Amino acid sequence: MEKLAYITGAFGFIGSHVAARLAGCGWRVACIGLGAPDAAAAAPGPVFFGPVTGANLVEFQKTTGTPDALIHCAGSGSVAASLADPLADFYANVVTLAESLDFCRLHAPEARIVVPSSAAVYGEAESPIREDAPLRPISPYGVHKRMAEELCRSYASNYGLHIAIARLFSVYGPGLRKQLLWDACRKAASGDFSFQGTGRESRDWLHVADAARLLHLLADAASPACPVFNGGSGEGASVAEITGLIGHAWEPGLSPEFTGVPRAGDPTVYLASCEKVRQTGFTPRIPLQEGLLEYVRWFRQQDHEEKRR
Amino acid sequence: MEKLAYITGAFGFIGSHVAARLAGCGWRVACIGLGAPDAAAAAPGPVFFGPVTGANLVEFQKTTGTPDALIHCAGSGSVAASLADPLADFYANVVTLAESLDFCRLHAPEARIVVPSSAAVYGEAESPIREDAPLRPISPYGVHKRMAEELCRSYASNYGLHIAIARLFSVYGPGLRKQLLWDACRKAASGDFSFQGTGRESRDWLHVADAARLLHLLADAASPACPVFNGGSGEGASVAEITGLIGHAWEPGLSPEFTGVPRAGDPTVYLASCEKVRQTGFTPRIPLQEGLLEYVRWFRQQDHEEKRR
Repeated sequence: MEKLAYITGAFGFIGSHVAARLAGCGWRVACIGLGAPDAAAAAPGPVFFGPVTGANLVEFQKTTGTPDALIHCAGSGSVAASLADPLADFYANVVTLAESLDFCRLHAPEARIVVPSSAAVYGEAESPIREDAPLRPISPYGVHKRMAEELCRSYASNYGLHIAIARLFSVYGPGLRKQLLWDACRKAASGDFSFQGTGRESRDWLHVADAARLLHLLADAASPACPVFNGGSGEGASVAEITGLIGHAWEPGLSPEFTGVPRAGDPTVYLASCEKVRQTGFTPRIPLQEGLLEYVRWFRQQDHEEKRR
Repeated sequence: MEKLAYITGAFGFIGSHVAARLAGCGWRVACIGLGAPDAAAAAPGPVFFGPVTGANLVEFQKTTGTPDALIHCAGSGSVAASLADPLADFYANVVTLAESLDFCRLHAPEARIVVPSSAAVYGEAESPIREDAPLRPISPYGVHKRMAEELCRSYASNYGLHIAIARLFSVYGPGLRKQLLWDACRKAASGDFSFQGTGRESRDWLHVADAARLLHLLADAASPACPVFNGGSGEGASVAEITGLIGHAWEPGLSPEFTGVPRAGDPTVYLASCEKVRQTGFTPRIPLQEGLLEYVRWFRQQDHEEKRR
């Protein structure tokens, strides 16, 4: 029989890609989370619209069955939003996880649980960052993600749940309506292609389809030891490179300009050590240049549709 | 004008002693938390019965005013209960704190916040345990208390809230209806005064009136640096000593017996280093022998009242 996966936050950026990935690999996929009702049409399986609570998961279980895996994509992914409303971020990133883990403890103790965490748990750290680096998160978002990781370890060690954690670096791709790529496309569209900072700040980019593949793959690594893996490419790309590629894809000759003033609190380099995750067999497949071209195409397409409305 | 303190969990074991202490020192005390309606009679100030949420705190603020201090005594204090129902423990110990901190961020940013944590955050550690020892909590209770501490540090560093944390060791006194002292009195009453373990396990006992005095005093130490202090006596007493004193107080000649088999997972010695907390001027005042005599008197009194009902 087909295996059943629960995807929490299934109508969000990462969740929707994870649901598509597992469905494409022959899993039955049950989608739960907050979302607009028209998201149901795109979902590759049964749908439950509502907050991710134990009660709602139990309700969903009555019609879909007991999951063989749960991939917890519910949560917020914005440092800025967490600073503006830390309690909302806490509920989104910690409470939904507590509810999901306790659901598994009580009703699906054999499920393989995969929890996306974030490179934000490291805070300031020397790159490439290994998984055993000290965790010194700064923003509420980073702190909440670290708390979420501790909850995972507690449920794994105290109740034997099978869990794996992926600390995702800069995930990008179609559907992402915030952060550098989104801003760069909006600036390109507006005609003012200038940016704050020096352009030298370097990040580790991972295409969302690769991130979804990693989260799927880590279901096999999930265990009561609750292993943690960096989710990155191991290669850095600077803001200047990224915006240069986007500018070029937008319109040959469009080059970014920078204020040259470093942004306070922004680390210069933030790069994953990928030694450990490579041992699971994972390597990213989508080259950055290709992913950025696709992103620009997607941005133009949805921008076009927006304007037609 | 009198200063105003909010005590969350004000109808619980520690909370009720803290409320009494602050009222005795001339504070206005506003009591919020879950409790039986007859607890209102004993409360030394205005009362709000209900869960500790931001919405309820805002409601309470309309009639009581903005607090100068908030002492967060809400929460559960049982390792065994946390193992049986980790989600309930998470809500009691982490979510109520998140709600209280966010209330302060939005509505009482100048309040001095004191948060009782627990020695359970240390897990296995070499005694005497200093505040900078590594935190390796084992039980869900210990993990949740550590998560609560992280939330404090995040609100202190990101929003400048004034917070101090007290890692309480074995707090005892009238009103405590669980753990060793309660069990020992019940055994004395039943006539079977035998215990599991070797009797050599040693803990650091702090009378609840001393703990309340410490929590009050730490309002002055609260700052955006979010300092952490052990709350203990710095002196260990073994289970054999404690039960010996209780037996003697119960009935001259009553001596405890032990199975002699060490209890799995119980550290032999668990003792606070009190160097740092002494610098605040705090020293415990109630000698253990005196506190135990008082506890036995209280137990007999309430046992007597129970039987008359």
